[in-house]
Amino acid sequence: MNAQSPESAYESLVQHSRELTWTAGLQALLEWDQEVNMPPAGAQSHSEMSGIIARIVHRKAVDERVGGWLEAAALKTDWPLVHAANIREWKRDYDKARKLPEEFVKKQAEVTARAYHVWRDARETDDFGVFAPTLAEVVDLAKQEADYYGWKDERYDALLDLFEPELTTSRCEALFADLRAELTPMVERIVAGQGPAPGPFGAAAFPIEAQADFCRRVSGALGFDFDAGRLDPTIHPFTTGIAWGDARITTNYNTSDPLDSLSSTVHETGHGIYEQGVSFDGTPAGQACSTAVHESQSRLYENEVGRGRAFWRYWQPGLNAQYGTDESEDDLVRRVTWVEPGLVRTRADEVTYNLHVIVRFEIERDLFRDELEVADIPRVWRQKYKDYLGVHVPGDLDGVLQDVHWANGLFGYFPTYTLGNVYAAQLFDAARREIPGLENAIASGDFKPLRDWMAEKIYRWGRVYTPEQLIENAAGSPVSTSFFIEHLKARYLRQ
Amino acid sequence: MNAQSPESAYESLVQHSRELTWTAGLQALLEWDQEVNMPPAGAQSHSEMSGIIARIVHRKAVDERVGGWLEAAALKTDWPLVHAANIREWKRDYDKARKLPEEFVKKQAEVTARAYHVWRDARETDDFGVFAPTLAEVVDLAKQEADYYGWKDERYDALLDLFEPELTTSRCEALFADLRAELTPMVERIVAGQGPAPGPFGAAAFPIEAQADFCRRVSGALGFDFDAGRLDPTIHPFTTGIAWGDARITTNYNTSDPLDSLSSTVHETGHGIYEQGVSFDGTPAGQACSTAVHESQSRLYENEVGRGRAFWRYWQPGLNAQYGTDESEDDLVRRVTWVEPGLVRTRADEVTYNLHVIVRFEIERDLFRDELEVADIPRVWRQKYKDYLGVHVPGDLDGVLQDVHWANGLFGYFPTYTLGNVYAAQLFDAARREIPGLENAIASGDFKPLRDWMAEKIYRWGRVYTPEQLIENAAGSPVSTSFFIEHLKARYLRQ
Repeated sequence: MNAQSPESAYESLVQHSRELTWTAGLQALLEWDQEVNMPPAGAQSHSEMSGIIARIVHRKAVDERVGGWLEAAALKTDWPLVHAANIREWKRDYDKARKLPEEFVKKQAEVTARAYHVWRDARETDDFGVFAPTLAEVVDLAKQEADYYGWKDERYDALLDLFEPELTTSRCEALFADLRAELTPMVERIVAGQGPAPGPFGAAAFPIEAQADFCRRVSGALGFDFDAGRLDPTIHPFTTGIAWGDARITTNYNTSDPLDSLSSTVHETGHGIYEQGVSFDGTPAGQACSTAVHESQSRLYENEVGRGRAFWRYWQPGLNAQYGTDESEDDLVRRVTWVEPGLVRTRADEVTYNLHVIVRFEIERDLFRDELEVADIPRVWRQKYKDYLGVHVPGDLDGVLQDVHWANGLFGYFPTYTLGNVYAAQLFDAARREIPGLENAIASGDFKPLRDWMAEKIYRWGRVYTPEQLIENAAGSPVSTSFFIEHLKARYLRQ
Repeated sequence: MNAQSPESAYESLVQHSRELTWTAGLQALLEWDQEVNMPPAGAQSHSEMSGIIARIVHRKAVDERVGGWLEAAALKTDWPLVHAANIREWKRDYDKARKLPEEFVKKQAEVTARAYHVWRDARETDDFGVFAPTLAEVVDLAKQEADYYGWKDERYDALLDLFEPELTTSRCEALFADLRAELTPMVERIVAGQGPAPGPFGAAAFPIEAQADFCRRVSGALGFDFDAGRLDPTIHPFTTGIAWGDARITTNYNTSDPLDSLSSTVHETGHGIYEQGVSFDGTPAGQACSTAVHESQSRLYENEVGRGRAFWRYWQPGLNAQYGTDESEDDLVRRVTWVEPGLVRTRADEVTYNLHVIVRFEIERDLFRDELEVADIPRVWRQKYKDYLGVHVPGDLDGVLQDVHWANGLFGYFPTYTLGNVYAAQLFDAARREIPGLENAIASGDFKPLRDWMAEKIYRWGRVYTPEQLIENAAGSPVSTSFFIEHLKARYLRQ
């Protein structure tokens, strides 16, 4: 390794980071294609292609030259803010990537690929017993993974930190304890007071073309740039930022309810605008901050905006014109704010949703504390659903087998969904205070002030700050669940 | 390098070839996406991604271990047919890939990327002069490229061999001299005898959805498997075989003429069925044989099948039902076999098409013999169009600037189009002799006998034989232009 000046090492890091980012873009494109375009017979060869690009990305990520450049860059201590942040994040990524032995990564990929198929089989027979032995393997590997990464207070911290830098189990517990205590009685009050359920939405089927057109219009109005992105149909909606100028969102069309595709479009639009809003220059400072911050953007648009009266004041006539329906503003608001404890997280309303997440968080925490065995998960699941949501879980299919995350080896991910809700409420509260007439702008179909505020407060900062610091800077107060609880009270208990 | 047994070296080559094939699949997917899906703002970053994956593919292709494995494998001399062919083709690919210095490849990529934009500018102003200096650079680089590859009789041979192994300038001259001598007077006779031109096809616009549906039905009937492929709209139709189980064809919809999208769909379906028909096992024996053999498949379906009376006997009622038209079988056959000398290759009929190709071949040949200067191309172009096609070329846009090939640095490619026609006629002649009732099957919508015959004669052989040998084996006679000339005479001078 030649002695390099810190500045020249920094330049090498930028080049390498840029190449790694575009290579990861190839991987993102392949994954997007698998969900959106791939013909079924291509599954096996696409899976081989996935393995190849994953290895290429991994090898670039662990390139030893990065270690040398980081050492050389560290010799300068007065880097400007963004440079220092890039160096910090490069080091974080490099250290993480090098901590997992290649053999281990390969084994984990094999086991989770198999686990996915076993999970699907278990769902076919509605029997967690089929999945349990494989899930136990996946959990064991995740424990090893956490140990490879290393942790201070407890093992689960290492997994949380993968998705949300510096998030810890104890921090989650503190936030979620507040929430759980508030939410369970709140749901009871809301359900008791909300009157009769809305009837079916129109009688006819809603053609996919009409829905696609409407979703596209709403997404564009919210600020998604179709010159720099796409909206495509898929089974499980997601967003991917492939490269600069290319962010892709997806939605799913339910021909009996056009609010489904709309709600998922609005959610993914939040993600998509964020991906289009970062500089995407190939450095960490040009990337989205974290999983929960990403989720705060989708949930802010989906919930704070998309379930709000102002949004529907503007879109109600357009929706009726598009679908030949005759829904009043009240009807629509009532539909999108209907609260009903249920079994399935992805079908949950904005309020009960977080109780689904808290159940999963507590189970994961106890698994990684070795206080819970995989075989006991269904029992604990049923008990918690009874205690927190008041619902009886009759089987595994819509119970413990409903999510793909654990089959994919994703532990520590669920908490970011609720953290996203918490961040979203806090950000929207700040936006409302700082943008004069925000609700009026939304009610007149003008979403630019909100987007501009978010660009200024969130998008342009990339990964310069840690997630909690970024939210605190943007909102002007430390992260707290109180804004989310206030938001729910204001919307569900005072209207 | 460890001493390795020939068998174990062969296994290493198989593994490496498979990984190289899937990596090239990633590149193919990226290119497909750029033509079909990419949002416009993504152009710059996608171009960076293209560069990255091209370098990854190149580095795998020149991996020195391949040289060692090839040496070890060569110690065994009694390999079975397919093994021997794979070793021969691996060696061919490896030698070719290693002959170009990385610096040269990079420079060539830069110059052709720039040339593409200059070509577009020149088209804007209809002025070859704008393009000439850049084209001269591209030609010089192609000469260097040919010299890096090496050649025996003349430089242009090295470029022809890239697309069509073992094709030479003198072989092309022999084939094309026959053709040119026959075609120019034949075109005059056909034009003189074919009566009045067909009128416009219906009055209304033909919706894209209806065309897409019809194209899909025809493509499926011909044998394209939509479980292992896709059909998408694009500007310039093409086919790409991404991986096993994933071949993608494209077409272009012209709302004023549904025969355009149909004809390009049938053409690409020929390519697509070939890609779906090879074993795609990651070795050369599982890949399509050559550019001209590929083209023989598309042209056989487009011309021999798709412009034939039997095809229209079956599809005429379906086409009228789909579009609400009232075309007789005679009307349709007359439309698709209308001959008219014109300026533009891609709009040419089946007969005059080859004269367009011969003009380009002769110009390329003379360029690489240093007998023609770039600046003189337009003059020669005009003269040849006058001599061979009897048409006056008024400007460069629909003259020498019409094709993108030269801007892309592709020299030696054009001849494969006409060679494809020659092969196609010879194969179809053999198929007709060997498949009892082939025309009746086609007239009743049954394309399976033809597909099965082609699978047996062409698809399953991959790159086991050289192109001419493969065609000779399949057709039962040495490659000759006589079948193509007979086909044209039978269709255009006796009906």
